Amino acid sequence: MSASTANPRDLDPAFALHRGGKLAVTPTVRVDDPQQLSLAYTPGVARVCTAIAEDPDLVHDYTWAARTVAVVTDGTAVLGLGDIGPRAALPVMEGKALLFKQFAGVDAVPVCLATTDVDELVETVIRLAPGFGGINLEDISAPRCFEIEDRLRAALDIPVFHDDQHGTAVVALAALRNAARLTGRDLGELRAVVAGAGASGIAVSRILKEAGIGDISVADSKGIVHAGRDDLNPAKAALAGWSNAAGYTGSVEEALRGADVFIGLSGATITEGAVAGMAGEAIVFALSNPTPEVEPAVARRHARVVATGRSDHPNQINNVLAFPGIFRGAFDARATAITEGMKLAAAEAIAGTVGDDLRADFVVPSPFDPRVAPAVASAVAEAARRDGVARA
Amino acid sequence: MSASTANPRDLDPAFALHRGGKLAVTPTVRVDDPQQLSLAYTPGVARVCTAIAEDPDLVHDYTWAARTVAVVTDGTAVLGLGDIGPRAALPVMEGKALLFKQFAGVDAVPVCLATTDVDELVETVIRLAPGFGGINLEDISAPRCFEIEDRLRAALDIPVFHDDQHGTAVVALAALRNAARLTGRDLGELRAVVAGAGASGIAVSRILKEAGIGDISVADSKGIVHAGRDDLNPAKAALAGWSNAAGYTGSVEEALRGADVFIGLSGATITEGAVAGMAGEAIVFALSNPTPEVEPAVARRHARVVATGRSDHPNQINNVLAFPGIFRGAFDARATAITEGMKLAAAEAIAGTVGDDLRADFVVPSPFDPRVAPAVASAVAEAARRDGVARA
Repeated sequence: MSASTANPRDLDPAFALHRGGKLAVTPTVRVDDPQQLSLAYTPGVARVCTAIAEDPDLVHDYTWAARTVAVVTDGTAVLGLGDIGPRAALPVMEGKALLFKQFAGVDAVPVCLATTDVDELVETVIRLAPGFGGINLEDISAPRCFEIEDRLRAALDIPVFHDDQHGTAVVALAALRNAARLTGRDLGELRAVVAGAGASGIAVSRILKEAGIGDISVADSKGIVHAGRDDLNPAKAALAGWSNAAGYTGSVEEALRGADVFIGLSGATITEGAVAGMAGEAIVFALSNPTPEVEPAVARRHARVVATGRSDHPNQINNVLAFPGIFRGAFDARATAITEGMKLAAAEAIAGTVGDDLRADFVVPSPFDPRVAPAVASAVAEAARRDGVARA
Repeated sequence: MSASTANPRDLDPAFALHRGGKLAVTPTVRVDDPQQLSLAYTPGVARVCTAIAEDPDLVHDYTWAARTVAVVTDGTAVLGLGDIGPRAALPVMEGKALLFKQFAGVDAVPVCLATTDVDELVETVIRLAPGFGGINLEDISAPRCFEIEDRLRAALDIPVFHDDQHGTAVVALAALRNAARLTGRDLGELRAVVAGAGASGIAVSRILKEAGIGDISVADSKGIVHAGRDDLNPAKAALAGWSNAAGYTGSVEEALRGADVFIGLSGATITEGAVAGMAGEAIVFALSNPTPEVEPAVARRHARVVATGRSDHPNQINNVLAFPGIFRGAFDARATAITEGMKLAAAEAIAGTVGDDLRADFVVPSPFDPRVAPAVASAVAEAARRDGVARA
């Protein structure tokens, strides 16, 4: 079991790559002699500590806090694996931290918490916040994630961002903006149906609303969420209050008849007939992983634009297009929060990167397009200043 | 205030060195194409997560947890500055993390907690422990630090080590071993007086006892700690139970008459007369920083061996000789705890590095001696196996 012993499991390249973990903490200064040691550590460091004690804002200038995000999970909704606990979630958090750094130069530290109690999660994150410049919540199950994020946003003066909600929402909106442009429509003309009323389903619906989509109906496993249902958790009840203007009460497939946009975030299945019954120039985002709600090849027979969450199909809705640049921009502006305006700006920046290359199979840029994160960062920092949450 | 603006404060080289902080999180693997992304992140990472969910021990093999220590503080006893809070403590924690990495290749993450309540500190560290292989407690005030460490050691199956206690204790014992060797005495023959009954004073006294020092009297600001006093906190009351066999009840200076060893960890002052009244071949460790309990030049008039905490005098008792190698050794052995045996082994290894170079002004190696951390790590790992706390 030692790290140096060859292990049959490591014949799988995913295991071989993960051996020993994917992150290191690296000093940015060296102490090679007593003089350097006396500056980086005692007694020199005491002057820096004293200055921060007198003026707490100096923590942004003289520590790593202002540029470091905690990637916080309780391991309750890891990828599609469900509640696998904080230890088993760590490889995903390390991966997230890796992407933060590689795509936007943001330092990120995995924080895997051994509690699933909402009060305990909130108080724990509040207690460890002084050492960080932002909190990225990750793979926390719905509906707990909504309350956790809301309470942390209220309690902390640093950005708090649940990526499973807002990262997905930002990239989906970016893709939808470009799909609408491709088909010559305004967002306000579109009627959308969202399958999935968990973290990402609700967040995608919200950002579509913010962006001006005409009507949005959202379904969970019991069908369309509407005010007449008595089985809704508070998050879904709130959703019922502002969504579904068309008043659907049945299944996703029923609501899909004549709809312009389908966004699947549910793991459910949509028949070919349901896609065929959508309006002309239909837009289908079948984002469940690894199995999209409808086979992309099948969807393409009837829809003009098809996107998935998979890297082996065109139009991958990948959060990595959003979260690194969003935190980079928030940190550059020393933002105290991530506003709706900052998320909308991020979506616009991602969409804008596609530019004249826009095609039905290219409504979002590649996750490896190096222009994306800087464009997102710049748009987000500007929006932070516009929204009055910037300190720099 | 922006990071790129020259700032008059930065004319102080300590501030200039600290600008932007001293640490970065660096990926150890790169994802430059979809194939690599699919291994380091979804979908490949899901196989690693699933394996850890089924066999939690695999977290040691496939994440950074087993080689990463959390450097945890509440900012209540930072250097000599007192309770300056978690933000102002961060530069010290970054410095500690820097030293962990540079001296022993141990990855370390600062965790600065916004609570000073003992119960809250304990539960918070327990909650964040899944992502780490060890807990280094730092700059937490006494006597709270004793209870916090004890409770965390009982609750966690990873090393928990309060460096202000045990790091100082290990290096002081190393120096005392060599001072005894230099003067041809066994540890059991020595009578010692310790000034200071805080975190480091009590820990130093304990390790001296473990190492077999004949008699130890410990003083706080009210004088020698003895069972007849009614003003003792639980940690000092316990100390009174096993220390001070000679039965002193007065001042440090009174106990010093005829003593072989003085160890100062108090910030108090010892007169030249008191040093002069010690036994022949006296050993004086005046470790308070920045002002030793007695001027080293004065102490040297009467004592054979004089050590301080300062880098500008010979025989610097510097924790950096201990903590990097101790955690390196504990991690190499995948130890579930740091035992008394591991601390004693660390002290012996540090003392052993001096070897034939032993002189009155060279009883401890230089903090920059590259042989120290590997020697400590190897001795500590061996002791972990001997003590039955090793998993590798």
